[in-house]
Amino acid sequence: MKALAISLGDPAGIGPELITEAWARRDAHDLQPFFAVGGEVILAAAARQRGLDVPTIRITRPEQAAAAFSAGLPVLALPAASSAGETERYSPGTPGLAGARLALASLRHTAQLALDGDVAAIVTAPVAKSQLAKAGFKYPGQTEFLAAACNIAAENAVMMLAGPQLRTVPLTVHCALSEVAGLLSVDLIRRRATITAQALIRDFGIAAPRLALAGLNPHAGENGQFGDEEIRIIAPAIAALREEGIDATGPHPADALFAPHARAKYDVALAMYHDQALIPLKALDFDAGVNVTLGLPIIRTSPDHGTAFDIAGTGTADAGATIAAIRMAGECAARRGT
Amino acid sequence: MKALAISLGDPAGIGPELITEAWARRDAHDLQPFFAVGGEVILAAAARQRGLDVPTIRITRPEQAAAAFSAGLPVLALPAASSAGETERYSPGTPGLAGARLALASLRHTAQLALDGDVAAIVTAPVAKSQLAKAGFKYPGQTEFLAAACNIAAENAVMMLAGPQLRTVPLTVHCALSEVAGLLSVDLIRRRATITAQALIRDFGIAAPRLALAGLNPHAGENGQFGDEEIRIIAPAIAALREEGIDATGPHPADALFAPHARAKYDVALAMYHDQALIPLKALDFDAGVNVTLGLPIIRTSPDHGTAFDIAGTGTADAGATIAAIRMAGECAARRGT
Repeated sequence: MKALAISLGDPAGIGPELITEAWARRDAHDLQPFFAVGGEVILAAAARQRGLDVPTIRITRPEQAAAAFSAGLPVLALPAASSAGETERYSPGTPGLAGARLALASLRHTAQLALDGDVAAIVTAPVAKSQLAKAGFKYPGQTEFLAAACNIAAENAVMMLAGPQLRTVPLTVHCALSEVAGLLSVDLIRRRATITAQALIRDFGIAAPRLALAGLNPHAGENGQFGDEEIRIIAPAIAALREEGIDATGPHPADALFAPHARAKYDVALAMYHDQALIPLKALDFDAGVNVTLGLPIIRTSPDHGTAFDIAGTGTADAGATIAAIRMAGECAARRGT
Repeated sequence: MKALAISLGDPAGIGPELITEAWARRDAHDLQPFFAVGGEVILAAAARQRGLDVPTIRITRPEQAAAAFSAGLPVLALPAASSAGETERYSPGTPGLAGARLALASLRHTAQLALDGDVAAIVTAPVAKSQLAKAGFKYPGQTEFLAAACNIAAENAVMMLAGPQLRTVPLTVHCALSEVAGLLSVDLIRRRATITAQALIRDFGIAAPRLALAGLNPHAGENGQFGDEEIRIIAPAIAALREEGIDATGPHPADALFAPHARAKYDVALAMYHDQALIPLKALDFDAGVNVTLGLPIIRTSPDHGTAFDIAGTGTADAGATIAAIRMAGECAARRGT
C-alpha cells in the first residue's frame, strides 16, 4: 500500500509539532506510513521544542517513505522552485509571508501527489487563510483549492466532521445565521446528502448508511409554528432521498438529535448550518475531530482545528485530531484500495 | 425547612411515574421532603405499573409533608372544586381533556402554595401545551403562567437549563431561526444577563458568576465577515454588563464554547437561540437537564423534557431529570432561606 502524505501547514502554527508527535506515537495508534511534504528543518526544530526525539529522514520520492518510516519521520523534499522558505527561521506564534508561501508550496505539492496517484491519501495541516491570501492564494480555504485541483465544483465538495462519537455534515457553512434559511434548497440537500451517502459506502465501509437530517428551527418548527423550512424544503428533500433508496430520516428536532440514544440510530447527522454541526462535535469530541472532504476523487482529511498561533511552540497543543486524521485517511484508503 | 411541592403534570404522560420513582430513590439522592399536588390514585397506579412499591399518604396541609415523607409519598388533596378528575381512569400515552384539567388544577394549586409561602420551592412535572390549551389555558407554557401569577413580565422570566456539565440560558426561545437576529437587542441581552447573574449569586451560591456569551454567527462572525450582530449588538451588551460589574465575556465562537476546556472557564453560557443552548445541553447531559426559571420571587424548577406520551407507562422513562430538578429546587431554597 502507498504511503500517506501530510502537508506542513503554517510553519508558525501548531501543524509541524503535531506531525512530529503523530510520528512519535505511530505505534500506539497503529498509524500506517506517512510522510511530511517539505519543511524538514522546521519539523526537526518543532520536535525539539516539544521535547520529542524525532529523527527526520529526507526522501526524494514518495515510495521511499514506507521503508524509512520506522526509523524516522520521512520528509519529502520540495521541488527546488518552491523550497525557498524551507531553511528560514520561523518563530512559533508569529506568522509571516515566507511561512505562508512555504505552507502553500507544501499544500500544492501534496495535492499533486494525490492527483498523480503517488500516495494513498492526503492529510492537510492547518493554515491561516488570511496569511495565505497575502501569498496570493485565491481560495476561501484548502477544501475549495483541492476541489478546483480535482476539477470538482466547490459546492460538490462536502465537509464531514467525524469524531469518536459523532459524524456530521453541515449543509451550509460560512455565512451569517440569518442567511441560512435562504441558502437551503431541496436540490442542495439532496445533492450533498447523496454525496455523503456514497462516501460512507465507499470510504467508510457502511453498506446502507443511515442519514439523520436536522430541522432548522427549534423543535423542527413544530408543524410550522416556528418557521416553515422543514415543511417547504427539508421534508421534501428527505422524501426524494428515500425514493432514491437512501435511508434518510427527519427533519429531527436538532436539540434531541445529538443526545446519546439518538446518535445510536444514525451513521451521520446532516446539519443545516455550521454551528448546528460543530457545537455537538466539539462538545463531545473536542480534541479528536477530523474534517473529511467527501465527493473528491482523492481522499483528504485534516484535523478539525486551526493554526492556534497562541499556543504554538508551548507544547500544549493536543495531537489527537492530527493522529485521528492520519488514521482515518489510512482507513479510507484501505477501503477504497488506493 | 418547608417541604417542596411538585405538580402532577399530565396524568397520561411520564410525570406521575417519575414522581413516584423520585420518592423511591429519595435516600440515594439525598432529596429533601417533597409532596405531590393532587392525583393520589393516579400516582399509586403509576407506581404499580412501574413496578415500584410506593405507598401514598394523603395530606391536607403542606406542613404535614415532612413527617409523612419517610413512610410514603405525601400527596396533597386538591380543593374539592378542582379535584373532579382525580378519580377518573387515565391511560398512559392517551391524553385527554379530563387529564389536562387535572394537570392545570395541580399547577394552579402548586403555584398558589409558593405564592403563599407554604412551600420552599416548586417543581413542575411536564404538561402537553396543546392539551392545556383545550382546557382553557391561555399561556404559551408553564413558565409564562408562573410569571403572570408572580406579577412578573414574561420577558423577565429567564429560562436556564442546568445539567451536571453545563448551565446555559437561551436568550431567545420559540421562534423561527431566521427571526432570531431581529429579536436580539442590547437591552434584551443586558436585562436577561443581569437577571441570570443575580440568580446565580442568590440561588446558586456563586459569589461572582462568570457569564460567557456566545456569538450568533459561525466563528462569532469573524470580524463582521459572516453577519454583524456580534459587532452591533452582542459586544456592546457585554461592554455594558462589564461596566455594571458583571463578569461577562464574549462574543465567543459558539462551536468552541461548549468544549470541555471552555466550559471550565464560565458558570453559565448565554446562547442567542434555542438550539445553541439545547444542543450542547442534551448532547452532554441528556437525562439530567433541569429547567430553572430565573427572575421570579418563587423558586421553580422542572425536568427538561416533555410528557413523552410515547413511552408513558412502559417503565423506560428516565427519572434522572426529575430527581435533579427536585434536588436543585431544594438546594436553591436552602441558599435563599425560603
